Amino acid sequence: MKVYNISFQIDPDLEFQWLEWMKNNFIPSLMSTKSFTENKFYQIKVNADQSPTYTLQLYCDNIELWQAYQELQANDHLKELQYTWGEKCYYFCTEMQIVN
Amino acid sequence: MKVYNISFQIDPDLEFQWLEWMKNNFIPSLMSTKSFTENKFYQIKVNADQSPTYTLQLYCDNIELWQAYQELQANDHLKELQYTWGEKCYYFCTEMQIVN
Repeated sequence: MKVYNISFQIDPDLEFQWLEWMKNNFIPSLMSTKSFTENKFYQIKVNADQSPTYTLQLYCDNIELWQAYQELQANDHLKELQYTWGEKCYYFCTEMQIVN
Repeated sequence: MKVYNISFQIDPDLEFQWLEWMKNNFIPSLMSTKSFTENKFYQIKVNADQSPTYTLQLYCDNIELWQAYQELQANDHLKELQYTWGEKCYYFCTEMQIVN
């Protein structure tokens, strides 16, 4: 199984709006591609002086679906994120592979 | 649900030995505390010039068990890691909370 992680740091003033957008727009849009079997959305504990930090984990157990998503759709979804939130939301992506 | 993440960067020369130790010693030792319902152990994709990088995710759905683990056992497990691998294995811990 592979996991596509997108980690986010959001401007504290926009956190509530951003969370609603994540739940109602971004995550459903990613899941509607049928590339991922499941997702988990977590808040990461940070120090009080840091911006709210979250990570979205998207699980995939089919390498062809994974590659197709990364080649054809991943950039569009990230552009949607950039277009909507600009510099108010920093993000980075990582790929993980289950051990065993 | 809360997740305790331990992320690792291991000396490439020791990766195989360390993986065996993780599977046969460290992860069973953490799970034997009964503080976590489940664990997932992932390799993180990195550039070729970076050391092998892994993350262990430990899931907990009981806040009392979580607090007891963090207060009474977490340091001992991390000391075991330091004692066994020293500077050959860098690590850091994060806490995550599921959103919703």
